[in-house]
Order: sequence, then structure tokens, then C-alpha cells
Amino acid sequence: MTGVDKRVRLGRFAERGSYEFTTIAAILDEAMLCHVGVSAEDGTVVLPTIHARIGRYVYVHGSPVAKWMRALRSVPLCLTATIVDGIVLARSAFNHSLNYRSAVVIGTADHVDDVAERRAALEALVEYICPGRWNDTRQPTASEIEATGVLRVNLDVASAKVRTGPPVEFAGDRDAPHWAGVIPLALHRGRPLRDPPARDAGELPPYLDRVRSCANLCLPEYG
Amino acid sequence: MTGVDKRVRLGRFAERGSYEFTTIAAILDEAMLCHVGVSAEDGTVVLPTIHARIGRYVYVHGSPVAKWMRALRSVPLCLTATIVDGIVLARSAFNHSLNYRSAVVIGTADHVDDVAERRAALEALVEYICPGRWNDTRQPTASEIEATGVLRVNLDVASAKVRTGPPVEFAGDRDAPHWAGVIPLALHRGRPLRDPPARDAGELPPYLDRVRSCANLCLPEYG
Repeated sequence: MTGVDKRVRLGRFAERGSYEFTTIAAILDEAMLCHVGVSAEDGTVVLPTIHARIGRYVYVHGSPVAKWMRALRSVPLCLTATIVDGIVLARSAFNHSLNYRSAVVIGTADHVDDVAERRAALEALVEYICPGRWNDTRQPTASEIEATGVLRVNLDVASAKVRTGPPVEFAGDRDAPHWAGVIPLALHRGRPLRDPPARDAGELPPYLDRVRSCANLCLPEYG
Repeated sequence: MTGVDKRVRLGRFAERGSYEFTTIAAILDEAMLCHVGVSAEDGTVVLPTIHARIGRYVYVHGSPVAKWMRALRSVPLCLTATIVDGIVLARSAFNHSLNYRSAVVIGTADHVDDVAERRAALEALVEYICPGRWNDTRQPTASEIEATGVLRVNLDVASAKVRTGPPVEFAGDRDAPHWAGVIPLALHRGRPLRDPPARDAGELPPYLDRVRSCANLCLPEYG
């Protein structure tokens, strides 16, 4: 668990930290993508990628011949997923902040050779970006599964950081004549755009129904 | 410019790459936060942070006594900002994707000693998360500026990756009986929540007006 100690020592927001698995898992599950950092021979590189969690593992995928995927194999990496929840406007410029939730995983990416596990990871990746979607696709052939590199990172060394709620002000600023509060932020899903476009677009599959309008958007409230 | 070469060699999406400064700057300017990766002595760490661009520099800030800020000083790092624009649902599971824009900056963080530059960076950071806000704050004192570490990374070695548009299908999948298209995504700003909450919340400052409803949300269209 030395990785956890590293994270504590490096963390800017240690006071907001958590090592609860359920907290970490929930952040990973909600984030649409993560950023993976690895120290390649030429230096540190951080790239975005989608991910999916199954139990105590996070999976990422890519072309097995890509240099990036090869660089990730069996070397230490850091996988970080962050959700932005709000802009925190304090009366003092100094105390402005963001409400956010981030999960940081430190581990080593293991290449998944097992075909069944690789297929399960690909299903999880599709279901992650669109729940309910997997069964409404032309599913991957054996050669497509072969042509997809899948890496697995375990969640043994991970932590979460969370900031919520209103601004924290210095006592002397509480009566300053500035608007203060939080502007909630959330990733909003718009009206699905059919391909190819058609005048009569027909019915949407049921699993897409809920993404048709912003009426479903849940924004945080406090106070 | 060896960093650019590194990025090309490691990039998974080299075919979607760009080295146009205006493209890179626009992504950095729109992204609400970035992820910074650094190889600390104990391993690679990737943490989220807000950033602001002024010309050909990106600034990040934090407590100057935080281990994280000290770890970033004068060492090579990678700063990556990603905007998610849509979920790309192809008929084949294999061709599912995300529409996204990412900017990757490889450089070294220089500590900003100059007080005027540090103050300008802090103003830029506040204006980044909320344009128009700086002049409606209690502005930082000399000691608050002193108590804020500011790091500067130049944009000489940077690249962008962008995916847009509908799914790309294999020819044999074009008639498969599955819905295909894009679900647009955008970070939506909700109704500002005043602190402390009040029944008569009064008028919002004009610079917050535009974030009151999702009517302002611009979602991409294609076809």
C-alpha cells in the first residue's frame, strides 16, 4: 500500500481525501473518461481514454499495436477520473474553487489475454458510455476481439478527493458586497442525432429515451 | 521540439492530430480543468487542477507548501485538457467511440516569482472558471498572492486530438438493424445557488445571467 502513502504525500487536498472503495468506485463509474499518465522513456505522458470498472478492476482498451498501448503494458501508471460538479464563487478571489470528485488509481496495467475476460471488458466499456447499448449492437467477432488490446488495472491502491458545498470564506469577507454561491455543473446529454439523418427518424430505442431532454438533468442543491 | 515527436509516437489517434496553436488554445480555453501528470520520485501521479492560458503560457496554482506543487517545480510534466462532445454509437460494438477534443502540453513548470505576473495569472484563473467575475470579488491581498504558488508552462510543445461527427462503420455493418448516431454531450451550467440561501435571492450579477437555464446550451448538429 505504499502507493496510497505516496498519494497522501503528494495530494493537494489531503483533507478532502477518502479511501472508501465505494466512493472511489462511484466516481470511476460516473466519469465519462479518465486520464492515464505513464512515464515513457521520453517523459511523462497523460492521455484521455474511456474506462470501465468490473469489481476491483478498471479496464482500458485500444489498438494493441499502438505505441501508447504498448507503453502502458506492465509499467506503473496513474489513472485519474474527475467529475466537475460546480463553480464555487467566494466573495474573496482567494477562496474561489471548484466542486469536484476525483478518483486516483495507482497501479500497473496488465494485458488481458483471456478472450472471455477481454470480451467482458469490451461489453463493460460499451455499457459504460451508454447503458443498455451492448445488446443493440452488432457484437464483436473473434478477430475484432483479437484486434483490441485490453489492459486491466487493479484498484488496490486508490483514493478519492471530493469537494462539495458552498464557498468557505474568511470571517472578514462574509459581508463583502459580492454575490457568492455555487454554479452547478453537470454533463448534459442532448437529443440523439441519428446517422444517417432522416426526416422520419423513427422511434428511439428505449435505453436512449432518457437522454432526450435536459428535464432529466439532476443538479445538486444545498442550503 | 522533441516533445512533439514523443507525442506523435505515443499518440493513439495520430491521424486526428493537430499542431495548430489556435486549435490547442481553444481546447485549453474551453476545458474547465486539466490533468497534470508528473513523474515524482515514487512514480507517476496525475491530478486534476484548474488552469488558465495567457498567450503562449498555461498557468496552474496551488499552495506553495503543498508537496504536489513542489513536485511540479522545474520537472518535466504533461498537462492534458479534454472536452467530451458526444457518445458515438456505431452499429458494431467495435466502432463505438467518443467525440472529444483534447490538448496535450509537454513542458516544464516554472515557478512564477514576479508578483505582477502571479496576480495576472490569478485573475486569469478566476476569469476562466467564471468570465466577468474578477471585478466582483474581494481581490487578493499581497499576502494572499504571496501564499499562492503559481506555475507557468509554455505551449511550445503541444498537440491536439479531435474526433467529430457520426460513427464510422465497416461497409458490412451499414444495414445492421441497430440505431446508430451520436448523443451530444456538453457541460451544462445550472441555476446559481446563492450562499447563504435566501428566499429573496435578489438579482444575479449580469455575468451570471447567461448560466440560468439550459436554453443557452449549444449542442452540435451534423448531417
